[in-house]
Amino acid sequence: LDQDSWREAAALLRKLQPAEIAHVLEALPLNQRQILWDLLETDQDGETLMELTENVRNELLQNMHQDDIVAATEHMDVDDLADFIQELPSNVTEEVMRSLDEQDRRRLETVLSYPEDTAGGLMNTDTVTVRPEVTLDVVLRYLRQLGERVPRDTDQLFVTNRDDKYLGTLRLADLVTNDPNETVAEVMSLGVQPFNVFTPDSDVARRFEQYDLLSAPVVDEQGHLVGRITVDDVVDLIREEGEHQFMGSAGLSEDEDMFAPVLESSKRRAVWLGINLLTAFLASWVIGHFEDTLERIVALAVLMPIVASMGGVGGTQTLTLAIRGIALGQLSSKNAGYLLAKELAVALVNGLLWAVVVGIIAGIWFHSTDIALVIAAAMIINLIAAAIVGALLPLALDKLGIDPALAGGVLLTTVTDVVGFLSFLGLATLFLL
Amino acid sequence: LDQDSWREAAALLRKLQPAEIAHVLEALPLNQRQILWDLLETDQDGETLMELTENVRNELLQNMHQDDIVAATEHMDVDDLADFIQELPSNVTEEVMRSLDEQDRRRLETVLSYPEDTAGGLMNTDTVTVRPEVTLDVVLRYLRQLGERVPRDTDQLFVTNRDDKYLGTLRLADLVTNDPNETVAEVMSLGVQPFNVFTPDSDVARRFEQYDLLSAPVVDEQGHLVGRITVDDVVDLIREEGEHQFMGSAGLSEDEDMFAPVLESSKRRAVWLGINLLTAFLASWVIGHFEDTLERIVALAVLMPIVASMGGVGGTQTLTLAIRGIALGQLSSKNAGYLLAKELAVALVNGLLWAVVVGIIAGIWFHSTDIALVIAAAMIINLIAAAIVGALLPLALDKLGIDPALAGGVLLTTVTDVVGFLSFLGLATLFLL
Repeated sequence: LDQDSWREAAALLRKLQPAEIAHVLEALPLNQRQILWDLLETDQDGETLMELTENVRNELLQNMHQDDIVAATEHMDVDDLADFIQELPSNVTEEVMRSLDEQDRRRLETVLSYPEDTAGGLMNTDTVTVRPEVTLDVVLRYLRQLGERVPRDTDQLFVTNRDDKYLGTLRLADLVTNDPNETVAEVMSLGVQPFNVFTPDSDVARRFEQYDLLSAPVVDEQGHLVGRITVDDVVDLIREEGEHQFMGSAGLSEDEDMFAPVLESSKRRAVWLGINLLTAFLASWVIGHFEDTLERIVALAVLMPIVASMGGVGGTQTLTLAIRGIALGQLSSKNAGYLLAKELAVALVNGLLWAVVVGIIAGIWFHSTDIALVIAAAMIINLIAAAIVGALLPLALDKLGIDPALAGGVLLTTVTDVVGFLSFLGLATLFLL
Repeated sequence: LDQDSWREAAALLRKLQPAEIAHVLEALPLNQRQILWDLLETDQDGETLMELTENVRNELLQNMHQDDIVAATEHMDVDDLADFIQELPSNVTEEVMRSLDEQDRRRLETVLSYPEDTAGGLMNTDTVTVRPEVTLDVVLRYLRQLGERVPRDTDQLFVTNRDDKYLGTLRLADLVTNDPNETVAEVMSLGVQPFNVFTPDSDVARRFEQYDLLSAPVVDEQGHLVGRITVDDVVDLIREEGEHQFMGSAGLSEDEDMFAPVLESSKRRAVWLGINLLTAFLASWVIGHFEDTLERIVALAVLMPIVASMGGVGGTQTLTLAIRGIALGQLSSKNAGYLLAKELAVALVNGLLWAVVVGIIAGIWFHSTDIALVIAAAMIINLIAAAIVGALLPLALDKLGIDPALAGGVLLTTVTDVVGFLSFLGLATLFLL
């Protein structure tokens, strides 16, 4: 693109929402991304940075001047700022803190005092509160006075007593459909359970889904209202959870940048390839014990990947089901037995079916009933092993605090490779030599 | 559980939200699930059914009496009813249609006339509309008159002209913070672009995320307001998209029931195993061409799975990145070249690195520099092939209308297996015999 086109691009950028700019930036290769970023007006920087995935954001921050970073934080919400500030070098953090007024600094410190993956770390402090004893008419006048200071995504106000203890919510829909002479206490909803500041964010997401919430109150240990969580942050959370499972199963982070610098990418991927190389060598080491057998019946070398691969595929299906069950909170040690029983039955049905098919094909191919019987038996053994590992491994990993979405696949295929080669070559050594 | 416990369970169920009941039902094995379902009061049936995943829902419906199904639809929203009714046998559908009043039937027919995966299929028809020329005070009085008929999740009203053409939105937050003497036209927001009824639901989800929407208007081809989409349905959509990618890569549907009946499960899984068996036999067929080579150098049989497996792992990482890029609308034929260039560079760096490592280990293991050189070369070749296929295959599948999340993995590992075995055994045949 030439000068004119870039100028046009700059004009176009001004008309876009920060999330749209972020979307375009992520879809651009590195050098074009930097050029577009430099074209962006400073007042768009902050919100755009917040919409970017972590890796892309950090990379742009590396090339930004300290003053520009501080300027970018000017229009950020407190919850965004809290996420943002934790990734900055400490001297920039101090600079940002100094640029805030007293009230915002206190709010930021509140949010920062809770772990990022809890309701406290997710919340914003921009709550509008009312007392239960006032009339709706008073509330309406109060809101008109506040005017622009009422956040535009407000769907409900929070009802608190003098001590700031949370009592209930007043939905705007209820505020405007009821008689102005009624009191807040008469109209407010008691159904919305507040989140404790330390509630894990995955529980927050599930409750938003189950109750179709638009916003929800957050209280501290003593029941004081400290903030609110809005559904737009929950939407991002749910998107991230889904991507974490999908990307994690390939050993990638959900923040992986499609156009990350080659060396950075290579470094991250090298770790994953290295782990897999270890497991591949383990499988080879198993095969190595059967060199004599392979030398005498070379057909075994031709057929052995089939047994290992079918075990891997069958086991991955069980594993995937179990990982999702754990993520949704629907699978635990309580009902794992039922899942195992069902998966074993499925493995047996499919093991028998495909053992017959593979046996017939292999038997005809190599003119040998013995080979047919051995591969059929190995197939059944491996599919059953795959079902057991697929169902129980994720629960075990979860108990050990290891993320099953990340480690499950590698470990499972290690087992199915080893069992596959061992059962096939082992049975062949016993019965065919 | 005995009789008393079940009675307690029934009492407990009455206190739960439909989404919570659905969550529990999904976590129960088949027979316990049916018992709990039978315990449920009829008035909870409808909403609970809507919260269940498709497979679990259909299975419960199979055992339900026609009258109970019709009764369950009584309290459903039109958008839910539209999803629901499409899965019923046609005689039950007719019965449900007959049970509706004239207005609801017309609304349902409107929603049913659009494909399920479009804005029209996703919308609800419960919009509250106001005219631009009236004052906010009039709006407030109108809303008080409507009272309970204003949906509780209303965050904004829609402004339309006399012909029902969409003009803009009036946020409740703006309604209550502005002077009651102002007109709707002065206060309304023009920023929310309405969705066309035929907008694909994935675009709807992305726009909700980018603009942090709570609800959005849907218009027909002539610009008439026909309904609204609410964020709770979008949340479900985003959850499903994430699960589709994750489950799809294992050949499972995102609706797969953890405790589906064994035979049904086996049947669905058999297809996937069968497809994989075909690709495994293809790999074996390739190996079969090198029987002579394998007979003479049995070390090749021991080492060959390493080359295939590393290609599969490296390719899957590229594939995963590309599938996510396509799903987010950030990867297309326009920037695919950049991704391919970067992935090739990454494959070259990691190919060289791990080729050296594998070469050294294999060389020491089998006391052969020749084997070391052959496996190193094969590894580089396969990782490069994996990067090319991983980056371009999903785009090609997408163009052909085939879901890359479903078919990508199988096709990729077919290529990496074939290229892995072919390059390793081929090079060995050329240089080692």
